Amino acid sequence: MGVVVGKLAIVGQGLIGSSITRAAFAARAAREVVVTDASAKVRRRVTELGIGEARVVETAADAAAGADLVVICVPVGRIVAVARDIAGALKDGAVVCDVGSVKAEVAAGMRAALPAAVHLVPAHPLAGTEFSGPDAGQANLFSSRWCILTPPERTSAEAVAAARAFWEALGAQVAIMSPLLHDRVLSVTSHLPHLIAFSIFHTALRMEEEFASEVIKFSAGGFRDFTRIASSNPGMWRDIFLSNREPVLETLARFRDDIETFARAIEAGDGERLEALLSTSRLTRRKIIEKEHISLQPAREEALPPLISPYASDD
Amino acid sequence: MGVVVGKLAIVGQGLIGSSITRAAFAARAAREVVVTDASAKVRRRVTELGIGEARVVETAADAAAGADLVVICVPVGRIVAVARDIAGALKDGAVVCDVGSVKAEVAAGMRAALPAAVHLVPAHPLAGTEFSGPDAGQANLFSSRWCILTPPERTSAEAVAAARAFWEALGAQVAIMSPLLHDRVLSVTSHLPHLIAFSIFHTALRMEEEFASEVIKFSAGGFRDFTRIASSNPGMWRDIFLSNREPVLETLARFRDDIETFARAIEAGDGERLEALLSTSRLTRRKIIEKEHISLQPAREEALPPLISPYASDD
Repeated sequence: MGVVVGKLAIVGQGLIGSSITRAAFAARAAREVVVTDASAKVRRRVTELGIGEARVVETAADAAAGADLVVICVPVGRIVAVARDIAGALKDGAVVCDVGSVKAEVAAGMRAALPAAVHLVPAHPLAGTEFSGPDAGQANLFSSRWCILTPPERTSAEAVAAARAFWEALGAQVAIMSPLLHDRVLSVTSHLPHLIAFSIFHTALRMEEEFASEVIKFSAGGFRDFTRIASSNPGMWRDIFLSNREPVLETLARFRDDIETFARAIEAGDGERLEALLSTSRLTRRKIIEKEHISLQPAREEALPPLISPYASDD
Repeated sequence: MGVVVGKLAIVGQGLIGSSITRAAFAARAAREVVVTDASAKVRRRVTELGIGEARVVETAADAAAGADLVVICVPVGRIVAVARDIAGALKDGAVVCDVGSVKAEVAAGMRAALPAAVHLVPAHPLAGTEFSGPDAGQANLFSSRWCILTPPERTSAEAVAAARAFWEALGAQVAIMSPLLHDRVLSVTSHLPHLIAFSIFHTALRMEEEFASEVIKFSAGGFRDFTRIASSNPGMWRDIFLSNREPVLETLARFRDDIETFARAIEAGDGERLEALLSTSRLTRRKIIEKEHISLQPAREEALPPLISPYASDD
């Protein structure tokens, strides 16, 4: 791709931040890379790792000074505070991205914190691993992954193009949508699944107590995946649920309706209706796979472990 | 282990049935193995495959005649019918297992269908893959997997010991519990997760229509796992939900309460309460991993793909 940014500043060197640092060097996307982290321990570790010979500085403002592109890679709950910290140091025309998984509320806070002459292009790369910290970063983390940009309405086309070029240089596939659509889409594809996984874990724990039996030990298909999701960082998810409150609660209400429809068919013993409901999911899943909606990453998709199904079927 | 069964009959040669055939030969668990399947196509395929030189016969009654152990490996909805088919052919003292994922209702139906001189030891091996049919069978499918036995109260200890020895010969770890406890445990560790996965798929589809946007395409952490679950066989899951109706509906009611607790904390913007709720899941998950409740199979567990988390955290 070649150089798409002059001076790149990356605030936060956890999994995503350090992956961006690695990916930017691997792609030679920037002429100069300056990074920082609120934690002195993390800054030391990044220096030790010598990731792509990035220059490590002490504060977000130091990193942002004179940068053409600043990427804020801190948890949702801290993004606006970082925007305030760097506001005075940013040069006119600088582009600022975050990488948070909630957009509307946080973007409004960032926009208010940043000078008018700075371009805000909020970003959400749909990528990650279950690990955290600078050692967990991977240069290819964004490769063939979606990165959703949610620029405010009057953002200059040049700033959006610059942000797009940057994420594409890291290997991501860019989609652009409104912050509200992003938050609604993610409320069903990410936030609700997490809320459910956390909840069902509580359900299983209560049943263990009541039956005085080790329920979870006998995890068959489904639950194992849920418990992996439920082991995600609680502080991070608290912030996500609270920052995306309305879409999450709306999606939850829709989900409640849908599960109610299934429950009514089970309660009525209506096998025909139940099978029709179950078949829709399967057919759609197949359609989705055909359209490669989900399997953007064939290599990783193939590495999925086998589903555990309760018994063989002859069909 | 050596021979633990004289004549073994396996009715149904789908994924589970053909895996049992393969595993029994690999372990030399039986002196003689006779198999059958309702589908002529499957019977032909098993003959072609020559799995462990099993003798392939036309009917379940032919297979069961004179057998010391009969394992019924057909979907939940057909188990009782097979028990009726073989009832007249079974010798006194024969042991009969099924492999269905619902026990109470089906076991009662089987018990009523079988002669009093035949021992019933219902079984549920917690093993499977997303594939079906005789080609999908694996000799090591049950290796280090739980197999739950739910013998009716007055079952002879010898019959239970014989069934246990057989499943252990296939590599499984045997647990014994009441049919009702089994059905309640599985309602939370398997049936509810499937019901949720099917439901959330409908939720996402409705949102795609309403927003005229490709919602599912942007699957982040969580949803991808759900869509895999939701691609399970609809007819099979119809039978499971209907056969285990009361436990499934009871567990669903508990789950509704738990998700309501989370929703109230989000609605109230109560970050402290929310984080406490989220932390319980994580701590318990850690405890469970330490106790090796879930990771009975380290090799497969390691093969799990990375979780997708929305951004890095510094902790």
